[in-house]
Amino acid sequence: MSLTIKLHSSLIEPDGGALVDLVVPESERDSKALEAESLPKVSLTKIDLEWVHVISEGWASPLRGFMREDQYLQSLHFNSLKTKDGSVVNMSLPIVLAIDDDTKERIGSSPNVGLLGPNGDLIGLLRSIEIYKHNKEERIARTWGSTAPGLPYVEEAITPAGNWLIGGDLEVLERIKYNDGLDNYRLSPQQLRNEFDRRQADAVFAFQLRNPVHNGHALLMNDTRKRLLEMGYKNPILLLHPLGGFTKPDDVPLDVRMEQHSKVLEDGVLDPETTIVGIFPSPMHYAGPTEVQWHAKARINAGANFYIVGRDPAGMGHPTEKRDLYDPDHGKKVLSMAPGLEKLNILPFRVAAYDTVEKKMAFFDPSRSKDFLFISGTKMRTYAKTGENPPDGFMCPGGWKVLVNYYESLQTEEAAQQQAVLST
Amino acid sequence: MSLTIKLHSSLIEPDGGALVDLVVPESERDSKALEAESLPKVSLTKIDLEWVHVISEGWASPLRGFMREDQYLQSLHFNSLKTKDGSVVNMSLPIVLAIDDDTKERIGSSPNVGLLGPNGDLIGLLRSIEIYKHNKEERIARTWGSTAPGLPYVEEAITPAGNWLIGGDLEVLERIKYNDGLDNYRLSPQQLRNEFDRRQADAVFAFQLRNPVHNGHALLMNDTRKRLLEMGYKNPILLLHPLGGFTKPDDVPLDVRMEQHSKVLEDGVLDPETTIVGIFPSPMHYAGPTEVQWHAKARINAGANFYIVGRDPAGMGHPTEKRDLYDPDHGKKVLSMAPGLEKLNILPFRVAAYDTVEKKMAFFDPSRSKDFLFISGTKMRTYAKTGENPPDGFMCPGGWKVLVNYYESLQTEEAAQQQAVLST
Repeated sequence: MSLTIKLHSSLIEPDGGALVDLVVPESERDSKALEAESLPKVSLTKIDLEWVHVISEGWASPLRGFMREDQYLQSLHFNSLKTKDGSVVNMSLPIVLAIDDDTKERIGSSPNVGLLGPNGDLIGLLRSIEIYKHNKEERIARTWGSTAPGLPYVEEAITPAGNWLIGGDLEVLERIKYNDGLDNYRLSPQQLRNEFDRRQADAVFAFQLRNPVHNGHALLMNDTRKRLLEMGYKNPILLLHPLGGFTKPDDVPLDVRMEQHSKVLEDGVLDPETTIVGIFPSPMHYAGPTEVQWHAKARINAGANFYIVGRDPAGMGHPTEKRDLYDPDHGKKVLSMAPGLEKLNILPFRVAAYDTVEKKMAFFDPSRSKDFLFISGTKMRTYAKTGENPPDGFMCPGGWKVLVNYYESLQTEEAAQQQAVLST
Repeated sequence: MSLTIKLHSSLIEPDGGALVDLVVPESERDSKALEAESLPKVSLTKIDLEWVHVISEGWASPLRGFMREDQYLQSLHFNSLKTKDGSVVNMSLPIVLAIDDDTKERIGSSPNVGLLGPNGDLIGLLRSIEIYKHNKEERIARTWGSTAPGLPYVEEAITPAGNWLIGGDLEVLERIKYNDGLDNYRLSPQQLRNEFDRRQADAVFAFQLRNPVHNGHALLMNDTRKRLLEMGYKNPILLLHPLGGFTKPDDVPLDVRMEQHSKVLEDGVLDPETTIVGIFPSPMHYAGPTEVQWHAKARINAGANFYIVGRDPAGMGHPTEKRDLYDPDHGKKVLSMAPGLEKLNILPFRVAAYDTVEKKMAFFDPSRSKDFLFISGTKMRTYAKTGENPPDGFMCPGGWKVLVNYYESLQTEEAAQQQAVLST
């Protein structure tokens, strides 16, 4: 026994600016597949596969796989990982893979496992695995700052999951695809970096979203570009970066959002010349100040150096109490202080609201607050569901039509289901 | 509005190795008292006063008062604070002062407040205050990794507390005293540093405890000293450092523990020549891996450079489930990775148990595990309560007698109370 202990062997290798890429070269694919076939298997849920996607493309670089316990504990307690060169990288969400008792038993003492997708297809391998306890209560409490029932990611991905976590080095046989007509938008961090280079961007500002783009968002993005130009940047590029993984059932689905975003660009609300639209493959945690760090960190990996942060990022209403789950200002405060994000320039959001005098979305002016109308996401959905039009200038007409059609189709579907129930 | 935000003004000044000392010089005491009298007042609970004690003597240095929101958020999310010189200091527990709505109202826009002790006496001032929301659920979840009912510190100090936190720079009029006959043991970090210098210690190893010292603890401490000598240190000094603030009702009270510790030194189980006994004034959180960082950090401030960490430090049973609240190994793992504790040498505890063959406490030998008897704190208390003797060699006889007397006095007290109830 050595007299003192310090973290040594478990320190993560820094990526040195070159992103982790865990897709095996084509030349090795067959032999790796053969090897994986022979190993004990772990079955991935849809959300697990989203994480495999995220890790394999380097969004979480320098992380090279699902977290082992030392990484998990650092993420949970410090929201960051130390690397071998002494630097600190931000890592606010535990990126972990849960298995149940039976799977653990089947793995036995095998040092490697094969990974099966939700359809049973072979996805990849996890090497030099480590299995450790999945204390769900502690994970939830430290990640969300709440253990209230009704947290969407918890109910979907943690409560039903196994009591063990398995960490290890990931290798995937092929890039993860969804074959939903949107794979072309799923640009990897490296592809985004290449595209920014190709366009000779001298500043990249990222906008994370999981909602349709209204003119208040657009105002903010266009205003940011103007300010960056005033600061002397010649060619600031916007990364419009909708989240593509798990979202809660009442959020607008990805395909509808992508169509809506296309209309916003077609209608000229955002300039296609200076905008890149890509899908961010991560699932959504709705973990507020903890998650916003992940959202920013992943975009740094994709080449962004400015990050726009609004009121209550990644937040939601408290699932059992009549209040926001998080203080709406904590997201930007925590982001501005987060270890490993020192180089990111954080652009605070000025609140935009509907100016009933000017009849457009504008930055809120507290001196004439009664002229402004705040249209929440819930309010917006109510308009679209009831077929009522929002005030002129809230959203471009093409984009609005996409939402109306979506909610109409939902109602038709519901009616058909009710009909089916009645006729059985 | 500046385009980007970063933490600037709120960064804490590093102490540069010189401890924060917030006791006002005697020459200024009268004028400060006069000023404090004129200010809105905040009444401190017993535990609040323990924190005033802790902060004022520099145990939490470079922290200069109760946390403002920026410090609170860093502590809650990152277990550490950034300082103006770019260094990181460990700060795992939020050191905060709660006030209720009425007190907030009374303070109004006053920039400073006076602090009153539990008996109404003037304790000091808090300057340049900031009042912010006390989200108890989030504080508890992120600090304990659980929101289960029955967490002792939560029930005592958070649930009944107000919905606001007040941060600011602390000034205390006089050193905090308790007049319980034990103040001489309440050595400040600076007094301890001076004492280590006086004894020409070239290594100081700290042992945090909130329980009586049995021969297993003593074995560990003596073994540590031996190893430090083998490493080439000439004069390693043990800081035997019982926690003196709030503990849960079924823990052995401080005065009994101090008497027990004295007997252990008298009986020669520990060597008084190479041991310093002091009281650590902090209240106990029972927050496991989060709290052990605080326990270590405070001892660094007092001059320790080696820290002994055992199984499940600062842990307890889960309040509502039949398991430990924390993984017993997480404490030392988290400690070994904690930001701001890089310079501390962590001494992992080898588990000691009662060797029934050798009839003494010894390091557990897994090759003959059936020879060993594990005597938990609960088991020890049961022995003492029932008057049964523990196995020979478990604890020195003088120390054991202190415990037996304590539990006898408890039973006498209980009997008297029952008698009183019956006769009314």
